[in-house]
Amino acid sequence: MRKTAKRGQIIVVSGPSGAGKSTVIAEVRTRRANLTFSISYTTRQPRQGEENHVHYHFVDQETFRQMIEEGAFLEYASYQGNYYGTARADVEALVGDGYDVLLDIEVQGGATVRRLCPEATLIFVVPPSFGELSRRLHGRQSESEEVIQGRLNRAREEYREIPNYDYLVINDKISEAADEVLSILKAQDCRVSARFDMIKGDISL
Amino acid sequence: MRKTAKRGQIIVVSGPSGAGKSTVIAEVRTRRANLTFSISYTTRQPRQGEENHVHYHFVDQETFRQMIEEGAFLEYASYQGNYYGTARADVEALVGDGYDVLLDIEVQGGATVRRLCPEATLIFVVPPSFGELSRRLHGRQSESEEVIQGRLNRAREEYREIPNYDYLVINDKISEAADEVLSILKAQDCRVSARFDMIKGDISL
Repeated sequence: MRKTAKRGQIIVVSGPSGAGKSTVIAEVRTRRANLTFSISYTTRQPRQGEENHVHYHFVDQETFRQMIEEGAFLEYASYQGNYYGTARADVEALVGDGYDVLLDIEVQGGATVRRLCPEATLIFVVPPSFGELSRRLHGRQSESEEVIQGRLNRAREEYREIPNYDYLVINDKISEAADEVLSILKAQDCRVSARFDMIKGDISL
Repeated sequence: MRKTAKRGQIIVVSGPSGAGKSTVIAEVRTRRANLTFSISYTTRQPRQGEENHVHYHFVDQETFRQMIEEGAFLEYASYQGNYYGTARADVEALVGDGYDVLLDIEVQGGATVRRLCPEATLIFVVPPSFGELSRRLHGRQSESEEVIQGRLNRAREEYREIPNYDYLVINDKISEAADEVLSILKAQDCRVSARFDMIKGDISL
């Protein structure tokens, strides 16, 4: 699907580590054909199974800082000593081609996108409760207690940014959370601001 | 479904006669359990098959004017010499009981609801084209050419109000138009403004 008349949407999805964002997003992608990612740039080390240019563009600090100076990022943020950023040109090319671009980013980045792209849709994903978040993080068994406590503290801070988001999806069951995200995207397609041009010519408004 | 903790939504659906609003709404109602109508008051004569207190509250002009004076209406409008209005108390009772209340009203009424209830969702339904609207109106074979031309002129005026609505649903296929309305309602349930209270207590925000 390329070069459709209609521009795509920009969708920000944020939420604490452990909210199940990635799983929900994967489910949403199987059910929404023109939805895609802009692959983020990051300076952090790849985790096991992560591939360069698939999960992230993995770059060194010097490259990342140079891109910042060049204004190459729509948004970027630092988290636990590493940079994460979305290349402006990548997103513009995809949206221009009619793709909906989903940005899986932190709350700092979400605030920047809100400022630069007021028409973007901001979705925050949370687990059903904070206790459940703690259980999910401990269940991973891949991180130290210190890292987990850091994530929980970070989550508390992120929750305070929810009022700056448009939608709040509570991820209890993945399929239901995915239904909600898909409904949000379909509703955004129906916004008068996105559709009015389609019928304006019809009666010379 | 009564006395749920959550208040319902107020949803305005407008669109020209012939857009297929009623059919779309009927389809939506079969698929959204807590969606209901506030039955409108009107001074017009019942059409064949219309029942008092089911399709409308049919009242005389004097009664209607007295209700206006008493401030009983959330919105009211006159159309082709008849009044149509939505009783404020009816809507408040239903929303308080957790029902989503769908108001099938004219653009004048939509503007009033927007002003009095900024959180209401305004949906405008159109046929795929103006030519199709004309075909549908002629296909009814129950109205004179003069009445049809009046409806088409009225439709042109109504279209100019679309920018005051939130969503535009183009009713080509009823099931797809109903899907869009249902997605809009589900998305509105996910608004941060509607949901933030649900999780706020969880981490003492």
